[in-house]
Amino acid sequence: MDKKLYIVGIGPGKPEGMTIEAKRILEESDVLAGYPVYLELLPQELRSRRDGTPKQEIRSGMTKEIERCRLALSAAAEGHKVSLVCSGDPGVYGMAGLALSLKQEFPEVEIRVIPGVTAALSGAALLGAPLIHDFAVISLSDRLTPWEKIEARLKHAAEADFVIVLYNPESKGRSGYLARACSLLLTVLEPERPAALVHKIGREGEAVWTGTLEEMQDQPADMFTTVFIGNSNTALLDGSMITDRGYREK
Amino acid sequence: MDKKLYIVGIGPGKPEGMTIEAKRILEESDVLAGYPVYLELLPQELRSRRDGTPKQEIRSGMTKEIERCRLALSAAAEGHKVSLVCSGDPGVYGMAGLALSLKQEFPEVEIRVIPGVTAALSGAALLGAPLIHDFAVISLSDRLTPWEKIEARLKHAAEADFVIVLYNPESKGRSGYLARACSLLLTVLEPERPAALVHKIGREGEAVWTGTLEEMQDQPADMFTTVFIGNSNTALLDGSMITDRGYREK
Repeated sequence: MDKKLYIVGIGPGKPEGMTIEAKRILEESDVLAGYPVYLELLPQELRSRRDGTPKQEIRSGMTKEIERCRLALSAAAEGHKVSLVCSGDPGVYGMAGLALSLKQEFPEVEIRVIPGVTAALSGAALLGAPLIHDFAVISLSDRLTPWEKIEARLKHAAEADFVIVLYNPESKGRSGYLARACSLLLTVLEPERPAALVHKIGREGEAVWTGTLEEMQDQPADMFTTVFIGNSNTALLDGSMITDRGYREK
Repeated sequence: MDKKLYIVGIGPGKPEGMTIEAKRILEESDVLAGYPVYLELLPQELRSRRDGTPKQEIRSGMTKEIERCRLALSAAAEGHKVSLVCSGDPGVYGMAGLALSLKQEFPEVEIRVIPGVTAALSGAALLGAPLIHDFAVISLSDRLTPWEKIEARLKHAAEADFVIVLYNPESKGRSGYLARACSLLLTVLEPERPAALVHKIGREGEAVWTGTLEEMQDQPADMFTTVFIGNSNTALLDGSMITDRGYREK
């Protein structure tokens, strides 16, 4: 018996950003499941069978996560080799947790998570080296988390002098959230603290903004923006955002 | 003029864990620099020129980071295509920050950071989905950071209910550090809090331990161990460590 569901991270978006393992598993899969935007990021050769016909795709929109996972598990239980495709890493705000928690309904299916480069890492690489030391990753989405809990995490992260990465800063239904987060952080951090935004990492329209925490309040952001706020050792240098780890000439 | 130094993350260790981009850049490089253990993780074909002869390698030990970066920058300035190889992601406790900060000595060299799957992500994928929600990454190494700062970060991370990932828990010269961190965390978290260790991710000897925070105090750890401590929504289920993101049936 070999019924397997792979939860596959494809990295930031461009095909070269996925791991060799992710590519091999997508090639070998005969059913692909995922949010349509992510499936469309895949190169055509991974979406086609060897004979050139398109692979079966299980597509469903945002907020249909439970349905999408069940359909993927159910296709695996029928004997298909199924990959559930996530952008970035499936274990960071991705589908890996939900799929594993629904597994008990499909005890015959084995689940394997294939990690990928999450936006914190791919965004950091574009900026220079902001995450070179201890950091905290926080989502500003209050769809599944109370805003008070998000605020408490922001405050602790600033007080602990973590480099801070924010995911999902804003969306159509959540405008003004980045400014709210900045103004909360400014109760702990100085206005000049280096900050950066990376939009659409590895995709068409990729763009970087760097400045200060105070200036960032007025910047536009959306679901495809990743936010970086430096720690007390972070500086902007020749257009790069670099956190000093503390190496000293001996 | 095209003088480039690539700082390349090769992921957890097995060749399939690197990105397609990382592999291409290593193939195209004629000089490889890095800590010898990392260079030896590379498949032989990436360490050889097209004619089969070995590529030039700049090897230097731990604590020789500044020297290694300068030699790599200097080889790039001479016109070689140079890759400085890091395990995991070069931007997370890696060489990207140091190389960028030394760049001013070699103004003609352009630096590009190629991200990789860091141990927090590859370890999480082996465990299930512990990082599915907000998390903090902390190194226990006090070689470059005062221990008091590490303690403050541990405490804030626990109070903020982050999932916590610890890098570099112990080393030959730093024994007992994991137990110290656990006992500090136990002043905030309950003894039954799910916890896990992953040893040698993607390498020979890969091993996983799961249990409670209290039990973890007595577990062995070293430089090749990555540590996971759940948040208040993390559970161990059928051998997997899963953090609930809060999806509910509607």
